[in-house]
Amino acid sequence: MARTSDTAVDLSPAELAAWRGMLQAQASLLHSMDAELTAAHGLALRSYEVLLHLEEARRHRLRMSDLSRSVLLSPSGVSRLVDRMERDGLVRRERCSEDGRGYWAVLTSRGEAMFREARATHLAGVRRLFLGHFSGDDLTRLTGYWERLVPGATKPGDPAADDGDCA
Amino acid sequence: MARTSDTAVDLSPAELAAWRGMLQAQASLLHSMDAELTAAHGLALRSYEVLLHLEEARRHRLRMSDLSRSVLLSPSGVSRLVDRMERDGLVRRERCSEDGRGYWAVLTSRGEAMFREARATHLAGVRRLFLGHFSGDDLTRLTGYWERLVPGATKPGDPAADDGDCA
Repeated sequence: MARTSDTAVDLSPAELAAWRGMLQAQASLLHSMDAELTAAHGLALRSYEVLLHLEEARRHRLRMSDLSRSVLLSPSGVSRLVDRMERDGLVRRERCSEDGRGYWAVLTSRGEAMFREARATHLAGVRRLFLGHFSGDDLTRLTGYWERLVPGATKPGDPAADDGDCA
Repeated sequence: MARTSDTAVDLSPAELAAWRGMLQAQASLLHSMDAELTAAHGLALRSYEVLLHLEEARRHRLRMSDLSRSVLLSPSGVSRLVDRMERDGLVRRERCSEDGRGYWAVLTSRGEAMFREARATHLAGVRRLFLGHFSGDDLTRLTGYWERLVPGATKPGDPAADDGDCA
């Protein structure tokens, strides 16, 4: 394996294991969950996430820019994703009346039905692949770790306000 | 906040905090690291990941299909990403000689130089945003947690073999 030579900034094996282990473990879990949702409902995990965020948002709608932040996609990436979901009838775009420029993504009744179906599959996966490996004490400790990293990370989502501009 | 009514499968608040906290915390860290890399080097975190995987791979090359798995992008997503990186001179595609169908992504010398520059920025971010919040014991515990979830997740990457077919 090729190794860069600037050892001054190298991470120790223990640091590397903790950091890369998180990325690897999460990627692996999400990959499995994506495969399960796709097989059972023809729904990608990323699309499920969009449905989830819209389901929880006030009036079942989010600005495209807020959605982009929530699902960690670039604006162009989220735009392509919403295009596909719009073709499948799961969401629709609505122009902001305030400034006539930005768009909302809005959950459709078909999207809501799909979310409810897919949710049981997804939660079963979360239990089997994640929660099932931890005791209650482990979960408390993990929650503490996430709060250290990002204060507020473990609190229920803060649905973006649905008034004001939606650029 | 709208709530689905099938409470039978709901996660408890403690379960939800541990699970969503992981997703939120990691998303937030990666978002910050992406912003730092982009500001300092004009390089997206996703592109940095591609450079890292190629740097560590034997002969600095990976099949497109392996790369897609490593960076958790769909085949079309990784194809678009490699298109952009090829335009920037950071990687090049090489057709597999074995079967004439698949492609390798290969690190260029410019890509390697970019990786070395960006690496210092990225590792400083990993230290400040992640490692700096944990003691050595915490890191050991986290590593144990990742191994429970995905055995092998904390071991050094297994560079995909560079022989055989590359479909």
